[in-house]
Amino acid sequence: MTVPQGKIGLIAGGGDLPARLVGAAKASGRAVFVVALEGHCEAPDALGAPYEVIRLGAAGKILSRLKAEGCVDVVLAGKVKRPSFASIRPDLRGARLLAKIGFKSLGDDGLLRIIGQELERDGFRLVGAHEIMADLIAPEGTLGAVLPSEQALSDARRGLEIAKVLGRVDVGQGCIVQQGLVLAVEAIEGTDEMIRRSAGYARPGAGGVLVKTSKPQQDKRLDLPAIGITTIEQAHAAGLAGIALQAGGTMIIDRAAVIEKANQLGLFLIGLPETGSTTHE
Amino acid sequence: MTVPQGKIGLIAGGGDLPARLVGAAKASGRAVFVVALEGHCEAPDALGAPYEVIRLGAAGKILSRLKAEGCVDVVLAGKVKRPSFASIRPDLRGARLLAKIGFKSLGDDGLLRIIGQELERDGFRLVGAHEIMADLIAPEGTLGAVLPSEQALSDARRGLEIAKVLGRVDVGQGCIVQQGLVLAVEAIEGTDEMIRRSAGYARPGAGGVLVKTSKPQQDKRLDLPAIGITTIEQAHAAGLAGIALQAGGTMIIDRAAVIEKANQLGLFLIGLPETGSTTHE
Repeated sequence: MTVPQGKIGLIAGGGDLPARLVGAAKASGRAVFVVALEGHCEAPDALGAPYEVIRLGAAGKILSRLKAEGCVDVVLAGKVKRPSFASIRPDLRGARLLAKIGFKSLGDDGLLRIIGQELERDGFRLVGAHEIMADLIAPEGTLGAVLPSEQALSDARRGLEIAKVLGRVDVGQGCIVQQGLVLAVEAIEGTDEMIRRSAGYARPGAGGVLVKTSKPQQDKRLDLPAIGITTIEQAHAAGLAGIALQAGGTMIIDRAAVIEKANQLGLFLIGLPETGSTTHE
Repeated sequence: MTVPQGKIGLIAGGGDLPARLVGAAKASGRAVFVVALEGHCEAPDALGAPYEVIRLGAAGKILSRLKAEGCVDVVLAGKVKRPSFASIRPDLRGARLLAKIGFKSLGDDGLLRIIGQELERDGFRLVGAHEIMADLIAPEGTLGAVLPSEQALSDARRGLEIAKVLGRVDVGQGCIVQQGLVLAVEAIEGTDEMIRRSAGYARPGAGGVLVKTSKPQQDKRLDLPAIGITTIEQAHAAGLAGIALQAGGTMIIDRAAVIEKANQLGLFLIGLPETGSTTHE
């Protein structure tokens, strides 16, 4: 892998990933300028790089600022919640983009895809977070010390199958399966809320697996589903036995710490190939 | 349609449907004996027919009681929530059934299918609620006075497509779509809880459609998805514009009253053919 050179422009949403990316970029000797998305990026001061807070709707301002900073490679990273209509306040460029998206895909993958295209049209190079930070993409196989039971593996395969068909119709990227029964399917509410909800329907002590996948058509440079330490903690709190990730299609933020937490709480963590989702029962 | 004769055995879960079925059966001159499922059928006294409260796990007792009452036609109707493991307390026959189901499908369609097969093995005739009560199955076309907008129809078609693929992998039978965005997908939590949840993610004033379908492999005599007056009220409370039902594959409990409520609250109600779920976009 040739390491790309020059200053990186980071368009940052919420969560841990943006700060970690800044750290990884700086460790490889590259400067970073951050566009911290207003209302999404929680603590721009803590990112460790110069930044400006700009609202998502001000697409023109985002692009011109990145250009002024001399960024060529641009990364989008971090959680972006579906913006409320009132909070967008588009600038001229933003309004043109909104018209193109037709409002309806706002907060959905469609939005990110359009933003990615727009960046490339302006001469930027869209770079995936995993190209800057090693160990971000979930590998195949068991991670950590806890092994999944036969039942858990069967639940994981059922979950992958479900997540795959959901992805094909462009819905969520996760579900929770316990002993063959689907306790929850993820739509717009996000993984955290889905895990919390599932606890109310799980049979105590009967395990259960959180499954995360990407959509088949997903651009790996844009918003791959991610888990982190809090995902492990929430899965544990909901009584789940472990987490199954689509290998190559999901991210683990801070892998070493995530594995340590999973070991400590007794959860398994496994990466499964997408082809493993085909059931022959 | 030849009306079946003799006393009807009604195995009753929760909700309005069992009492309405008793009324419809009596109106057509047929006697009814009710097995009120313990913990599921809320008000057996109000059903208007002789009954015995028996727990779901006591399959042997249910079957022998129905036999002793001279019932030949048996209907299963009403909501049955996923039973907790402790609450089942199977009798001998129940234990044999549980072993057959392998526990894992409890509360899922698998359970109902096995119960249906078991009834027929014992010489009963499994009858669908819609065979006793006219107007129960959702017809094709707009019901009520409110017409869906173009956007709502597009949302309804997207919802049918999603519910169809979910049904194929034996997950839930409903979802909520607003301007192309899937706000919620139903798994084990049920329609009511899904509607409540969606309100937190809906864009106010932007409509949204509740879509209900049956699973492709679903036996129409067993537990077709149903809506009633409370579904209309909840959809209204969540700000949805209307409800789209798979024509021929879902039930409307108390159609006249449901339509009246929908008109009153300004919600559309439409039955769409399953083939309408194919999108050509």
